[in-house]
Amino acid sequence: MSILVVGSVAFDSVKTPFGEAKEILGGSASYFSISASFFSPVSLVAVVGQDFPQDHLDLFHKFAVDTRGLQKMDGKTFRWTGEYGFALNEAKTLETQLNVFESFQPEVPQGYRNCQYVFLGNIDPVLQRQVLAQVTQPKFVACDTMNYWIDSKPEELKKTLALVDILIINDAEARMLTGQPNITKAAKTICSWGPKILVVKKGEYGVAMYSHGSIFGAPAFPLEEVFDPTGAGDTFAGGFVGYLAKSGRLDNETLRKAVIYGSVMASFNVEDFSLNRMKHLKHSEIQQRFRQFKELTHFEHDHLL
Amino acid sequence: MSILVVGSVAFDSVKTPFGEAKEILGGSASYFSISASFFSPVSLVAVVGQDFPQDHLDLFHKFAVDTRGLQKMDGKTFRWTGEYGFALNEAKTLETQLNVFESFQPEVPQGYRNCQYVFLGNIDPVLQRQVLAQVTQPKFVACDTMNYWIDSKPEELKKTLALVDILIINDAEARMLTGQPNITKAAKTICSWGPKILVVKKGEYGVAMYSHGSIFGAPAFPLEEVFDPTGAGDTFAGGFVGYLAKSGRLDNETLRKAVIYGSVMASFNVEDFSLNRMKHLKHSEIQQRFRQFKELTHFEHDHLL
Repeated sequence: MSILVVGSVAFDSVKTPFGEAKEILGGSASYFSISASFFSPVSLVAVVGQDFPQDHLDLFHKFAVDTRGLQKMDGKTFRWTGEYGFALNEAKTLETQLNVFESFQPEVPQGYRNCQYVFLGNIDPVLQRQVLAQVTQPKFVACDTMNYWIDSKPEELKKTLALVDILIINDAEARMLTGQPNITKAAKTICSWGPKILVVKKGEYGVAMYSHGSIFGAPAFPLEEVFDPTGAGDTFAGGFVGYLAKSGRLDNETLRKAVIYGSVMASFNVEDFSLNRMKHLKHSEIQQRFRQFKELTHFEHDHLL
Repeated sequence: MSILVVGSVAFDSVKTPFGEAKEILGGSASYFSISASFFSPVSLVAVVGQDFPQDHLDLFHKFAVDTRGLQKMDGKTFRWTGEYGFALNEAKTLETQLNVFESFQPEVPQGYRNCQYVFLGNIDPVLQRQVLAQVTQPKFVACDTMNYWIDSKPEELKKTLALVDILIINDAEARMLTGQPNITKAAKTICSWGPKILVVKKGEYGVAMYSHGSIFGAPAFPLEEVFDPTGAGDTFAGGFVGYLAKSGRLDNETLRKAVIYGSVMASFNVEDFSLNRMKHLKHSEIQQRFRQFKELTHFEHDHLL
């Protein structure tokens, strides 16, 4: 049931209206792997610099994340600096230092190559395919991307999408990728390029999933305190893919529960900086919030009309 | 079970990326009353000018809307001209001609005064209270407002809210009314001012309802073709209040079904200009789309974790 994830491991400096933190653990692969580890074992492929401290490695190991694929290169770790306004809906990137990430060539260790589940985090689509070329017959491949790749490498991205079972992106990216403002139409277009399942994240507005001719809509969990939204999308993907790997199925019933588990994990992660909330999250809390999602969305059939 | 509605009856000129229509029937009270009429009898209080044609009156009567409270004044009917961009998410107002609406003094005919349900459409909060002063002990009062009144008459609006059971507004209005970007927090503040039930419309992202200590989240119906979003909010309110009036209850189970019926009505209305889709809408179609909402949002309990 092990999941191979490739993506970024970074130092983030984040400012929100509620506080500020410098050089904290971040990056798509960090958020994904620790979130997914609540459901399934995770094997990490990423790169860090010589400045990456043992503490962070220890955190991965505490969650049983396999770090044999985490390369340590000469130079500094990837750094991102961002800021959120009062509405917390969009990060303003103040600075990106690619550092060792600039020359990253993902290498999948021998011990990872028969992982049954693969998550291609948001990196160059050419590198995403390099990873796929190194694994043998996974049961499914899930993938993320971002506006930067949609804009700069659309043809490479489409080649990657042709090899992918599940695409997990946000609504602005779905519109940008297809040039289609209507998300339901955009979903049809994207699914014609390869992915048979499309998950569209809408931030505070929840998630829509298009799968096997069916659409699933789920709201986000209504939190009174959102402290730092950084990593919400990757934590969502971790819970979603982690649950699918645990169950080993891709039918609609399983996929819908996976969306809820993804939403649950994201809702916890935004309660604190970095992965701080994940560090003391309990399985019983995950189950309780899953049940709260059921209460949030439930309504009865009606025969009054 | 009759609902008294006060609001605007207007001629709209609308341009969308898919077409253009001039001087078509619009206004909050028009959309509300015809939508609500699918569930409960409706009594209309509004004003039009001498240019208001018999055809439109006939349409109200076709839906058994009582128009004894529709004043015909010297002058021209209220006119609104607006335009939507490709994303269809927000109307750009090009022109507003208040005309007879400027001196509108709502008068509730004797035959309406014991209506059990009241919907105060988006008009001056002072006029909203004038209507309430003319009715005897309704079972509940629902209310809409807009940024214009929040900005120009906040204290008058709060006096009206103190007399209201249900407030139905959009998320931008909820934030503006409270100065609070977090909607869940904003909801608590608004409910402390009077309304015990708050319905927050989020356009294409669905609806959140805060009632009796419970939160309900519902997505919008995923349409591939949205032709004209004008009137979606008022059609929603019509379905919502119409269903509540039909059932005569305000418990959470009923309220949640009312949100779905409101969403169903709005999803039909945006399929065509003006009230054109309502003109040939069947009860069986409403019921079918209600069931589709159930399929859209359903997920099973889980015990795998």
